[in-house]
Amino acid sequence: MAEKSEALKKHYEWQGKIEVVSRASVKTREDLALAYTPGVADACLAIEKDPEEAYALTRKNHMVAVITNGTAVLGLGDIGPAAAMPVMEGKAVLFKEFADVDAFPINIQAKDVDTVVETIKQIAGSFGAINLEDIAAPECFEIERRLIDELDIPVFHDDQHGTAIVVGAALINAFKLFEERDIKKSKIVVNGAGAAGIAIAKHLSVMGAKNILLVDREGIIHSDYPNLGSEQKRMLEITNLEDQTGSLQDALTDADVFVGVSAPNILTADDIRLMKKDPIVFAMANPIPEIMPDVAKEAGVAIMGTGRSDFPNQINNVSAFPGIFKGALEAKATEINEAMRLAASYGIAGLVKDEELHAEYLIPDPFDSRIVPAVSEAVKKEAIASGLVRK
Amino acid sequence: MAEKSEALKKHYEWQGKIEVVSRASVKTREDLALAYTPGVADACLAIEKDPEEAYALTRKNHMVAVITNGTAVLGLGDIGPAAAMPVMEGKAVLFKEFADVDAFPINIQAKDVDTVVETIKQIAGSFGAINLEDIAAPECFEIERRLIDELDIPVFHDDQHGTAIVVGAALINAFKLFEERDIKKSKIVVNGAGAAGIAIAKHLSVMGAKNILLVDREGIIHSDYPNLGSEQKRMLEITNLEDQTGSLQDALTDADVFVGVSAPNILTADDIRLMKKDPIVFAMANPIPEIMPDVAKEAGVAIMGTGRSDFPNQINNVSAFPGIFKGALEAKATEINEAMRLAASYGIAGLVKDEELHAEYLIPDPFDSRIVPAVSEAVKKEAIASGLVRK
Repeated sequence: MAEKSEALKKHYEWQGKIEVVSRASVKTREDLALAYTPGVADACLAIEKDPEEAYALTRKNHMVAVITNGTAVLGLGDIGPAAAMPVMEGKAVLFKEFADVDAFPINIQAKDVDTVVETIKQIAGSFGAINLEDIAAPECFEIERRLIDELDIPVFHDDQHGTAIVVGAALINAFKLFEERDIKKSKIVVNGAGAAGIAIAKHLSVMGAKNILLVDREGIIHSDYPNLGSEQKRMLEITNLEDQTGSLQDALTDADVFVGVSAPNILTADDIRLMKKDPIVFAMANPIPEIMPDVAKEAGVAIMGTGRSDFPNQINNVSAFPGIFKGALEAKATEINEAMRLAASYGIAGLVKDEELHAEYLIPDPFDSRIVPAVSEAVKKEAIASGLVRK
Repeated sequence: MAEKSEALKKHYEWQGKIEVVSRASVKTREDLALAYTPGVADACLAIEKDPEEAYALTRKNHMVAVITNGTAVLGLGDIGPAAAMPVMEGKAVLFKEFADVDAFPINIQAKDVDTVVETIKQIAGSFGAINLEDIAAPECFEIERRLIDELDIPVFHDDQHGTAIVVGAALINAFKLFEERDIKKSKIVVNGAGAAGIAIAKHLSVMGAKNILLVDREGIIHSDYPNLGSEQKRMLEITNLEDQTGSLQDALTDADVFVGVSAPNILTADDIRLMKKDPIVFAMANPIPEIMPDVAKEAGVAIMGTGRSDFPNQINNVSAFPGIFKGALEAKATEINEAMRLAASYGIAGLVKDEELHAEYLIPDPFDSRIVPAVSEAVKKEAIASGLVRK
């Protein structure tokens, strides 16, 4: 860059976007004797006697680890662990600013599943929950699955579930605008079969969708798709049940919904015209969507969402993860499961009253202060109902 | 405990003694675009291009990891990683309150050297320096040595070097009070051959001491000492050069200096009388020293120090580690070496002017605000002089 960007300048000024501060003042010997030796020994012994006390006597229950290995950072790809840190710090900032949840960024050197899993297991005791971030597919699927199985604290890969939850919320409300439409009977195309696309397809399946086609660069994901990944293969149990082959255009034909987590400008007005009348299009490639809203509407799209803040219906994972973790921590949840993620979608969707709902207002703005309480309460309630809580 | 201690009550109130806060306000979309996407990508790309930029664009250069596996916590022993966390948080508090250095507590499950080293190497990129804490001997020696060799950031095991540096400072000034005494010609007994005792003996050796006896439960450490550890064996190159055997009392005979990091009340007045006239005694067992100051003085001790704040000459590692790390980070040091640790001792000692110096005022009180600047400047200067700095 010839000239330093405003964002880069701000980063130099910040000298790091997070800071670790003390909640215990230590100005006198008496303070020192309480916060440190000898008094601290009483807190240690209480935890030794009952490990659950760690949640009350240390920061554990307020502290999320934001962990990456830098293999799939934003749209930049595998830029490595050090270069990923500004994003992880940014994430920690959002946790604190949106939900008053402490989060600490950690980067891991390894790319292989075993080392990433083992490292996180070694340090997980320091935290109340784990937010995996910007870890490449397909490794991210196995890393998350193994950590959920092997750890007793919530683990959540935001690149998978964050966007899926907000897409779910927007779609719940979008369907309310069509009396004749039902997610169970709709044809839904999810374009982009990486971490986000796969998670979206799973989430919509849990929401009741039965006719989902997952599409990637070589067309519709089917049993003979070239270099089919193990997670993509697993998706054939809930998507493309007729094992259809074909192009994105074939998939779009008579589809009700397009959800894009793929690439800029890959949809044309002609593609839109292949879809059913009044289609729903969420084009979330960033910063340039799969199709620009004006072109989409001109071609007949009834409801349009993007990832951008300068168009209506911004679908942004920041509407999900702060409240999800806040709710999970408050519930003392031992994991974040599909039912809790679904509850989060309904929590966001429920903020828009029927009389407010219209094609350009499906979900509240990500800065709406009602989102975190709604999501955290929904998640907390579901966690307690499902019994996946400590004690 | 029948009644909750004041310290335990405070720990429940604190809900953790540290907190991660945001240095970047995110109240508007514009803020979000600078601290997070899309602006953050510029900071990521700058680090990808030049990894050194991580020190300017993230919190790395202000952030110390305080890492334990909970195997030797205070005097409580192997209470495990979770129960060690109140101490680690306390340490992080002291880093921030004394030196405005951010520190984050991490606990590791493993006890074996390989796993601890590998885990720390995996996450080290997230930090500017590593403070190892409360890791049992003998594993602590190899863990520290390997991490110093294999990482490009400073690594410092405080249980070893923290106390050693402050003992060194106190002894530098104690010797100034005796015209006829010289560390090079003095007989020094170090009682307790664990992490702290071994580090103290090494540090005094670097300061010029040639006649050091290291003593543990079975007497003087010598080549046939029962179950001699590898680090204890290594110490025979710089201590007990005549391979003397015998009891603590044999060691004390005609000794000038006793340094205790051992157990309460193990020294008697008679033991003191075995030493040279006007001996120097630093009895640092906590909270009950090896001999109480009144008993020691009655038996002829000229200069007395303890670990306690209610007696003169408090020798406490809090006088060392905050300034050590601050100096190392400011110097952009790649390690903390023996010369830097020695510089720290002289930095602390130099704060007491000759005309102020007396038997009951060897070093400033740990809360003296001059200590951190003196230590950090000394360490910084030595790091730069030794060339062990980045760039």
